[in-house]
Amino acid sequence: MSLESHYPSNCPFCRISEAYPASSGTPIPSAPDPTLVDPNAFVILSSDHVLAFLDILPMTTGHVLLTTRVHHEKLSEVPIGPTAQALGYWMPLMSRALAKTLDVEDWNVVQNNGIRAAQVVPHVHFHFIPRYSEGRRPPSKKSKGDTFEIKSWKMFGRGQREELDEEEAVVLAQNIREALKQEVEALEKDTAKL
Amino acid sequence: MSLESHYPSNCPFCRISEAYPASSGTPIPSAPDPTLVDPNAFVILSSDHVLAFLDILPMTTGHVLLTTRVHHEKLSEVPIGPTAQALGYWMPLMSRALAKTLDVEDWNVVQNNGIRAAQVVPHVHFHFIPRYSEGRRPPSKKSKGDTFEIKSWKMFGRGQREELDEEEAVVLAQNIREALKQEVEALEKDTAKL
Repeated sequence: MSLESHYPSNCPFCRISEAYPASSGTPIPSAPDPTLVDPNAFVILSSDHVLAFLDILPMTTGHVLLTTRVHHEKLSEVPIGPTAQALGYWMPLMSRALAKTLDVEDWNVVQNNGIRAAQVVPHVHFHFIPRYSEGRRPPSKKSKGDTFEIKSWKMFGRGQREELDEEEAVVLAQNIREALKQEVEALEKDTAKL
Repeated sequence: MSLESHYPSNCPFCRISEAYPASSGTPIPSAPDPTLVDPNAFVILSSDHVLAFLDILPMTTGHVLLTTRVHHEKLSEVPIGPTAQALGYWMPLMSRALAKTLDVEDWNVVQNNGIRAAQVVPHVHFHFIPRYSEGRRPPSKKSKGDTFEIKSWKMFGRGQREELDEEEAVVLAQNIREALKQEVEALEKDTAKL
């Protein structure tokens, strides 16, 4: 397969995938440089088969995208094998990490296929969208009033979205990475016990 | 673990799980009897770790739920192991089967955790919701006018939903099962080639 078919250059997620290759050690990078791509990427996970990073137009604080390393437009195109397995593996772990980091109990996982399903970037990805209780301010070092809160359900991909605050994003991504690392370590401990 | 913790009796998805155990042969049953539970269940998949069946209040024709065999309330509670792997395995396959059966190119996959995320049944499940083009009638043996079509995005779990027509559901589930079987067989052929 050619490099172009792996990483179509007009795909923003492929540019992230290319800029943040899997490291040989842990799939959760320590302090990845957000400025390797434009717009900046706040990477949480970079494994052989999947990546996760903050949505640059979050619906709520902690809105994360989980995507495949290689370009596939829709979920139907994800090959059965390591990539599908990695999605199954990381979805519960990412959920746990977000719930702990953001102290949130409710969240949606949404994966859109095609324009009529509100897919914006044609590279398969799962949205993880925390749902905060009414009036509750999610962890944030800056006050932004009500803009972080979702008052009601909005249409997907067309709801109220706010540009990511980059200073906050650095801290947020760091905290989610740490929680995710802990989840992976807890798992390894469990396995070691067997 | 007790039977009650595996299958809480007040959980409608656990009742389906109990009524449709995994068969030793194929994970896709041939002609499962919908009347083993009340309300009737139109089962598409019944493997050791996951089940899929038609939503009884479909948002569109072919609205399918993929759920875990064992009761877990939220995605964060799904153990890393065979169940998480099965979700990763069946999500692309179910997508392919639905796209082919319904001749649809667009669909959403949605998984809600908690009341504020519009989760109705507290047993982890993924919605697969086909999105038909405006004015297009999805495959159906009965005319139902516009009620099968989604005119606009609706709030999740609170949008326009219609009770499943049971005669249509029998045919629909059968068609999706056949398409899903073909996807699995194609996969096995691919593996045999290696």
